Amino acid sequence: MIRQQELHVATDGRGTYDLTQMVQAAVADSGISIGSCHVFVRHTSASLMLCENADPAVQHDLETFMQKTAPDGDPMFTHTAEGPDDMSAHVRSILTTSDLSVPVTNGRCALGTWQGIYLWEHRLAPHQRKVIVTISGE
Amino acid sequence: MIRQQELHVATDGRGTYDLTQMVQAAVADSGISIGSCHVFVRHTSASLMLCENADPAVQHDLETFMQKTAPDGDPMFTHTAEGPDDMSAHVRSILTTSDLSVPVTNGRCALGTWQGIYLWEHRLAPHQRKVIVTISGE
Amino acid sequence: MIRQQELHVATDGRGTYDLTQMVQAAVADSGISIGSCHVFVRHTSASLMLCENADPAVQHDLETFMQKTAPDGDPMFTHTAEGPDDMSAHVRSILTTSDLSVPVTNGRCALGTWQGIYLWEHRLAPHQRKVIVTISGE
Repeated sequence: MIRQQELHVATDGRGTYDLTQMVQAAVADSGISIGSCHVFVRHTSASLMLCENADPAVQHDLETFMQKTAPDGDPMFTHTAEGPDDMSAHVRSILTTSDLSVPVTNGRCALGTWQGIYLWEHRLAPHQRKVIVTISGE
Repeated sequence: MIRQQELHVATDGRGTYDLTQMVQAAVADSGISIGSCHVFVRHTSASLMLCENADPAVQHDLETFMQKTAPDGDPMFTHTAEGPDDMSAHVRSILTTSDLSVPVTNGRCALGTWQGIYLWEHRLAPHQRKVIVTISGE
Repeated sequence: MIRQQELHVATDGRGTYDLTQMVQAAVADSGISIGSCHVFVRHTSASLMLCENADPAVQHDLETFMQKTAPDGDPMFTHTAEGPDDMSAHVRSILTTSDLSVPVTNGRCALGTWQGIYLWEHRLAPHQRKVIVTISGE
């Protein structure tokens, strides 16, 4: 059995957005009790991650790490059509992931206690992001 | 339903190779209309990515970023049996991904407008790369 | 058909642990001959990777690379509740992956000759890690 849903996520610009409840709701709606839940972001300047969900400092520090590793406006970048956060957003997306799967067990994503599913907006400006959730199983 | 195909990709050495058309053709051949398409590279010195497909400068800049982050011949590396691009290729593979999945909707990979599926050859010399595409769904 | 198993991996602290045999055994147990095998780590300070399986120097060099890129105790990190290897472990997890899938062909994971499936423990102290393996196919 396959069930698919598109989620619409309005971001306020750079930062992390917790999708866990929306994804768990899609799994509950599917009626699937065992299998996998695939999450996919249809963009190349926003990405996904499974991240610690308890201390907001973790996400703050991940942002700091990325600003050091792939700084906005780095003069080595030539793809700057949309501004200084254009190419850095692509690099950040490549270093994290555009898709992830979580096992479904007993009708729920079998996340660890401290795991949340996050969309990471890498552009500075607000964006409308589309995420496709595909649940497959029995 | 499951359909599986092995793609053979001849690379001319380091750089990105657009697999989007080959993968979409495998999905079309499968007859599957809804589900997932999994792409897997059977190597540890070439990887996959979903990347911006319009401006070649993006891929050029990603190359520049990797050459800075994991430079060939970095003296900190001890695994140098196959030359200065041996260990850097493994690092680049680990930082990107060896497998990715894309949702299948209406018989096609539901990529975003600006997303393409790329193989990233990290070795300097030409290689023959094997990629397995597995489509599952209904 | 879906088969799911939880693996328990006791680590001795930071380093890589080869899961290939355990995962291949789970695939063999499943009776599935074609499809996909999904591996998922239920933690945010240990991750997974597909890595070169022949020369231990590769894993040594990956450790060196991570120690340079995301050093323990970096003063830029504020999330330090569990010590200097707390935030660096989250960064290392984000840069690698929490989940991966391998195609199943003829009842086995269709890994390349030099590919192994590894758990990468990023914390210095020993931990008990849970890994869920989900095999789907026919």
